[in-house]
Amino acid sequence: MSYTAPLKEMLFVMRDLADMTKVATLPGFEDANLDTAQAVLDEAAKFNGEVLAPLNIEGDRHPSTWANGEVTTTPGFKDAFRQFGEGGWQGVMHPVEYDGQGLPKLIATPCIEMMNAANMSFALCPLLTDGAIEALLTAGTDAQKQLYVPKLISGEWTGTMNLTEPQAGSDLALVRTRAEPQGDGTFKVFGTKIFITYGEHDMADNIVHLVLARTPSAPEGVKGISLFLVPKFMVNEDGSLGERNDVRCVSIEHKLGIKASPTAVLQYGDHGGAIGYLIGEENRGLEYMFIMMNAARFAVGMQGVAIADQAYQKAVAYAKDRVQSRPVDGSAKQSVAIIQHPDVRRMLATMRSLTEGARALAYVAAAHSDFAHHHPDEQVRASHQAIYEFLVPIVKGWSTEMSIDVASLGVQVHGGMGFIEETGAAQYYRDARILTIYEGTTAIQANDLIGRKTVRDGGATAQTLLTQVDQTIAALEHHDGAAFDAMHRHLKAGREAFANVVEFMVQNTKRDPNAVFAGSVPYLKLAGIVLSGWQMARALLVANEKRSEDEAFYGAKIATAHFFADHILPQAVALEASIVSAKGNEGVLALDIDQF
Amino acid sequence: MSYTAPLKEMLFVMRDLADMTKVATLPGFEDANLDTAQAVLDEAAKFNGEVLAPLNIEGDRHPSTWANGEVTTTPGFKDAFRQFGEGGWQGVMHPVEYDGQGLPKLIATPCIEMMNAANMSFALCPLLTDGAIEALLTAGTDAQKQLYVPKLISGEWTGTMNLTEPQAGSDLALVRTRAEPQGDGTFKVFGTKIFITYGEHDMADNIVHLVLARTPSAPEGVKGISLFLVPKFMVNEDGSLGERNDVRCVSIEHKLGIKASPTAVLQYGDHGGAIGYLIGEENRGLEYMFIMMNAARFAVGMQGVAIADQAYQKAVAYAKDRVQSRPVDGSAKQSVAIIQHPDVRRMLATMRSLTEGARALAYVAAAHSDFAHHHPDEQVRASHQAIYEFLVPIVKGWSTEMSIDVASLGVQVHGGMGFIEETGAAQYYRDARILTIYEGTTAIQANDLIGRKTVRDGGATAQTLLTQVDQTIAALEHHDGAAFDAMHRHLKAGREAFANVVEFMVQNTKRDPNAVFAGSVPYLKLAGIVLSGWQMARALLVANEKRSEDEAFYGAKIATAHFFADHILPQAVALEASIVSAKGNEGVLALDIDQF
Repeated sequence: MSYTAPLKEMLFVMRDLADMTKVATLPGFEDANLDTAQAVLDEAAKFNGEVLAPLNIEGDRHPSTWANGEVTTTPGFKDAFRQFGEGGWQGVMHPVEYDGQGLPKLIATPCIEMMNAANMSFALCPLLTDGAIEALLTAGTDAQKQLYVPKLISGEWTGTMNLTEPQAGSDLALVRTRAEPQGDGTFKVFGTKIFITYGEHDMADNIVHLVLARTPSAPEGVKGISLFLVPKFMVNEDGSLGERNDVRCVSIEHKLGIKASPTAVLQYGDHGGAIGYLIGEENRGLEYMFIMMNAARFAVGMQGVAIADQAYQKAVAYAKDRVQSRPVDGSAKQSVAIIQHPDVRRMLATMRSLTEGARALAYVAAAHSDFAHHHPDEQVRASHQAIYEFLVPIVKGWSTEMSIDVASLGVQVHGGMGFIEETGAAQYYRDARILTIYEGTTAIQANDLIGRKTVRDGGATAQTLLTQVDQTIAALEHHDGAAFDAMHRHLKAGREAFANVVEFMVQNTKRDPNAVFAGSVPYLKLAGIVLSGWQMARALLVANEKRSEDEAFYGAKIATAHFFADHILPQAVALEASIVSAKGNEGVLALDIDQF
Repeated sequence: MSYTAPLKEMLFVMRDLADMTKVATLPGFEDANLDTAQAVLDEAAKFNGEVLAPLNIEGDRHPSTWANGEVTTTPGFKDAFRQFGEGGWQGVMHPVEYDGQGLPKLIATPCIEMMNAANMSFALCPLLTDGAIEALLTAGTDAQKQLYVPKLISGEWTGTMNLTEPQAGSDLALVRTRAEPQGDGTFKVFGTKIFITYGEHDMADNIVHLVLARTPSAPEGVKGISLFLVPKFMVNEDGSLGERNDVRCVSIEHKLGIKASPTAVLQYGDHGGAIGYLIGEENRGLEYMFIMMNAARFAVGMQGVAIADQAYQKAVAYAKDRVQSRPVDGSAKQSVAIIQHPDVRRMLATMRSLTEGARALAYVAAAHSDFAHHHPDEQVRASHQAIYEFLVPIVKGWSTEMSIDVASLGVQVHGGMGFIEETGAAQYYRDARILTIYEGTTAIQANDLIGRKTVRDGGATAQTLLTQVDQTIAALEHHDGAAFDAMHRHLKAGREAFANVVEFMVQNTKRDPNAVFAGSVPYLKLAGIVLSGWQMARALLVANEKRSEDEAFYGAKIATAHFFADHILPQAVALEASIVSAKGNEGVLALDIDQF
């Protein structure tokens, strides 16, 4: 299986939609100009295409295996991970003082996309390590940061997030794992954690588990959860490894996809207690975990974009190669490559435009994160932070929902061959299916989008975005032609739909929460469609401007934006109908539980 | 894994939507009244629930295996197939003179649904045998019918359809398998066929292969294809088995789903030629194959309904059992079963309403087929035949497309557990994925819907259906309440969208075939949504009438119809936009092949 990073497209989005040049003016990012970005992306494309992509299908065929508490990863993964660490790829966006490269999230994001497109199962290990690094940087002591972060960045060690327990999935209030203080500042941790990605493996010398648990004095519910660091091997003060800690992998899951990524059941404290260290303050664990989780949610959104792009690339290659049937317009007497057939073209254009739209929205969000963290003006930071936080559940929820559809279309383009595992298209369909579930299901994202992001500020952030959309709509008006007409009409209708739903949410969430939350996922999808469509509209304007510079690239961009306008944006209005005009969603809630 | 046939729902659709009582007045169906139907369905529910359903997950875990040309099916399948044959289930809709039960398709259809819901991999064997029986009854000689059909109906032998070759998938013009006349009325067949469902297995004494091949004098293309019967074991005149024929299974595929169903590569004639018998006339093979295929396409549509219903049942059971998080409306301080959460309710209602709508449309189509075959008046027969033929690609295409979404939602309802194979939800997601591909991809169905079904009669059949939809819309006007309001509004809008698209197709297919066919699958989906919605509207009218007789059942029906109106029907308008207002789908076709 091959993967070619869409470097030109990535750089277009960074430069022309996500304001790369302005990001490079932020304090600390002075060297992070477009040339740097291009150099980093070139290297990333090389590493991911040459080292990780060939291992993707291997991982599916030879998943991680468990025996006697130890997990052996797919042949080749260990060596690839060594190269990954040596290449500095774990540190792209982490601080220079801990041996990271200190680059903007806007540059790290395409790197994350590439790695996930090349090999999602592999990329999950760094993804979780990123989360552990974030949490330590946020809430760890200086000593903890010094001891753990450089080793995590170098790839000598990896990190995990331990939230889920059998009875506590989305509902972390139900976490039961307990941490007993030992009087010496350490804790002994007891409990069972499930669904722990790379909770055990053989690719690094140590694993740093970040674990949600309750201290004996903790209040019930989510306000009584603390965050602990539990290393697989104890760490001496000089960073060398000590004894094995009392955390064991008792099994790994047999999954639909991402089979190379070991999903561990971890047992803490069966032999006297696993030594753990409190991170930050007691009972604030959930807060810290949310920092990790927001970073991870954004990254999972990028997994959606990545797998969609990979599925698209594979489908295009097959459609150009496979000869079958004469063209419907009678333009040839012979059978032609199936990409000549209008419905295959429609499927490929759907895959492409959804992927481009979601990618653009995600990169734009990444730039907002850079401004939110690095802009000298506090008010500017706050305003970018609000937009970034608004976009995170959309990037996570929408990119992943669309990725399942795109991967499914990828199978469809392959016809019967798509259903045969050897072809590889089916792997994306299986792998993608986890994305709308882990790091918070789409419904959890949608609840976040409604509650914390839309309603809490009375719709203010949504309104900020709508105002920006309006500027784009106004700009579209100055142009003629079918693409501009379609985009103007459908983006405007989508914008109205979005605005109506926001108003509905703001006005009814308290009064009729069931009605509002019955429309939560439709709202998230609507937001994803309209805001991605907005990016496609911005791309259309730029492409129209620059068309003569590169007809092939910008012409394709215009056609893709046109397609998005005609085929994807109209769904926003249908979604609005299912939220607002459904008036309280009586249809959803009228069925008694017994009637199901 | 358990399966409970939705008998009440099935009987409701048969009686109140598909005119069972009228079907039972047709010549030959005098005994096929509602009581008969109920008795047959009760028995079918028992057999499928008790015998086939428990083997479904077994088939996924222990797929058919190949060794030395022989295929061993999943343990338990052989015995279950014996019971299937002895129970007379293969013969439900086949003629009494060949030992069938001679029941209407309207009664056979729920039986087919149940078997596929219980165990789709198993059900594929009877599905293909049905096709072989149809072809023999249509085109076989009396001697051929007498020799083969009773054994196929009894389950002693099974049948296959051999169309596909490596270079000839959707494009049968490329078929290369050749049949050489031996001068004694027999032929020797040489060639390779792939993707042959149950092309080899151990569940029956013999396998009757129906094979598309070319005679030496045949013209090129689809007009030079003939149909041959090639038995695995030669059959003596008394029906006893003779020597092994020269057809060998050289491998079976490693597939994403329906793993228990062996998908064979068959090699004909490697040792001197496989003896084959011409079925019907030379060079008319494709015509006969289409008869089999139309029956098979309808049945695959039922597979979509079946797997959607099974995925729904499983998701409901999990959602009632799994306790997680407090309700959003603050109505409980404790965590509740997740079915209490509005978005879970929305997902389940989506699954349910899509399934009910597609089922109703399919049963209605089955009744049209019964009228088309059994009504004494030729003109009445012709008019029902036209409607049935219009509906077949929609039943096939739409039921299967929606089944993938429904199975995917089923995984989503299960959260993280849905991704774990042991749970079983993932199997439906994998199994369903073949349905939009085999027996003609959705695009093939959509091309058929446009070309042969919509445009060839200038939209007349579509208009007949629209007129019937109008009558339902008019009936809705006489009622008040949220469900009726929503249904009236959205069905009317959907009907307009449908009518506009039909007009667009009729006017532009010749003039601009690429533009029309770029909208083919969207049109098929639109038709599926509107015509299913129409059935939901008819159900709403009946349920409203009868509500006091059975509040639980009819109340649920009203709520489900209401949901369909608010959440599913609005998509029709979005689809119309992507076909008609896209004005020639410049967006689809503007991208050059090199730009993909």
